[in-house]
This record gives sequence, structure tokens and C-alpha cells, in this order.
Amino acid sequence: MRILGLDPGLATLGYGCIEVEGNDCQVCDFGVILTDAGTPVGERLQTLYDDLTTLIPVLQPDCVALERFFFYKMSHTIEIAEARGVILLVLTQLKCPLLEFAPAQVKQALTGHGNAKKIEVQQWVQRELHLPQLPKPDDAADALAIALTAGRLADLPTGKKGKI
Amino acid sequence: MRILGLDPGLATLGYGCIEVEGNDCQVCDFGVILTDAGTPVGERLQTLYDDLTTLIPVLQPDCVALERFFFYKMSHTIEIAEARGVILLVLTQLKCPLLEFAPAQVKQALTGHGNAKKIEVQQWVQRELHLPQLPKPDDAADALAIALTAGRLADLPTGKKGKI
Repeated sequence: MRILGLDPGLATLGYGCIEVEGNDCQVCDFGVILTDAGTPVGERLQTLYDDLTTLIPVLQPDCVALERFFFYKMSHTIEIAEARGVILLVLTQLKCPLLEFAPAQVKQALTGHGNAKKIEVQQWVQRELHLPQLPKPDDAADALAIALTAGRLADLPTGKKGKI
Repeated sequence: MRILGLDPGLATLGYGCIEVEGNDCQVCDFGVILTDAGTPVGERLQTLYDDLTTLIPVLQPDCVALERFFFYKMSHTIEIAEARGVILLVLTQLKCPLLEFAPAQVKQALTGHGNAKKIEVQQWVQRELHLPQLPKPDDAADALAIALTAGRLADLPTGKKGKI
């Protein structure tokens, strides 16, 4: 079962792909898609669209996991939601099954408590995926965390439920 | 000079297309694209993407006008921004010049004061476009209003600046 986690953003979109086999999880790939702040928003969204449309067929995930998006009082909420709209469009066009989890569900699933600090989650991701160091940048680490959450919590499409 | 105004939304996306010739404005077409609340968000965004990608080449606007989007404390802000992300993507793919105006600019440009009520703006749109009745639904009227604002305020791409 291959799961792709995505952490939406306009400037930085994090991705992290894992393979879940029973109790074992291995990292396939992780990284970020970057767009230039000096470029019009439409062109930046086109970059996300193009890069995701190329990346997802290469990674061939069985499903894609995203954090459920809540309303934050942050200036870049609108940018994140615009990027999220393009992500949801690409997933629909590529017919990728989508799983969504609340931020607190991710922390709870991975560390055992819903108010864990970011560094705790990252250390857990590093340990679980047998990585030699903390996954960087943060957006890629967040994407791996949501993918691991899906592996633990989801009734996965094939019926195989990973136990991390 | 043909201008297409769009009023973004996930459930209802309003559009209004006008032709500006010197001081005269004529309506070309207006209406709404609807999506079903019972359908997954990705499929609803795909409907907006498909319908806009069909509609815009038919209307052949010289430019597209949108309200600049601000952060509102509303539960559907995220839905609007996700729809807006798809709109900006389509405009980029179709190479449509984009003009953006703040909501207060629209009211100021059309009625002469920035705190005009919605009905005042709609009456102004009806009068200016020689319509037999108020344009309906509201989302289409808002789209016509933003198109008329562009006709009045913008340095239009061809250098012809409409005076409404």
C-alpha cells in the first residue's frame, strides 16, 4: 500500500510518499514543490498543477492523504486554500482516492497526544521511517506525517490496514 | 472591448460578460455555474474547471475581472478560495488578462460611494446595461458589476478605456 501525503501551500507544497507493508513503513520519496513569490498567483498555481500532474503518476500512490483544512486567522489562509483547490482538482483528474484527517488526529495518531509539538512529530516520523536525520524541510516532514497517519488510521482502499 | 466579470464560489459561480464601446455598455451574457452540495469538493471543482474552460472561449473576453479577495471570518471562505484557485488556474491556461478590484472600489465606481447597499449596485447595473429587470441571481449581478467596474476603472489592455 503506497500512500502520498501532501501539505498544501502556494510558496511551498510539501509531499511525502511511503510504502506500508503490515507493521513496516518505508519512505519512497519526499520533498517540496516551490513557486516564486514574485510571479503572479495564476502562474504559481499552474506550476503546482503541472508538477503534481507529473509527480503523482511517477509515485503511483494507492491513495493521497491531506489534512482537513480549517479556518485560521492567518494572512496566508487564502493562498493555502487556493493551492488546495488546485490539489483537489488534480486528484480528481487523476482519480486518486483522497483521505482527510484533522491536524489533532495526526498528532494523536503519531505521538499519542493531540497537542504534541512539531519537533515531537518530526522525531516520530524520523524513527518510524528509519531516516538518518529529521526529514527536512518542515513541509515535507508534515507531508510524511499525514501519510503515516493515513497508514495508521485509515481503512485503506485495498482493505489492508497498516499498523504503525 | 469585451469584459467578463466572475464572482467566485463553489456552489454558485456567477459570470457576466459585457461589451464596452466608448460610453456605451451592452450585456453579452450572464448567468451562474452551479455545483451540487452533495458531491465531493474535487468533483465540484472539476465542474467549475470544465465549465469555465468551455465558457470563456465561447464568450471570447479581452480581459477577465475579479474582486480582490480578502480574509472574511465566514465558514465558506475556504470554499470560495478553493474555487478561486481553480479560476486563476483556468485564466492562466487560457492566457486571459486579469484585472482585480477591491469590493469597495466596485461600489465606489458604480454608485459613487463605497458603502452602497447591494440593491443600489444591482439597480445601477440594470440601468447601465438597459436590462428590463434586475439581473438575477445575485451572483450573476455581482459578476456584471465587477465587469462594469473594470470598464470604468481599468486601463484596458487595448488602451481603450471605457467611460461608463
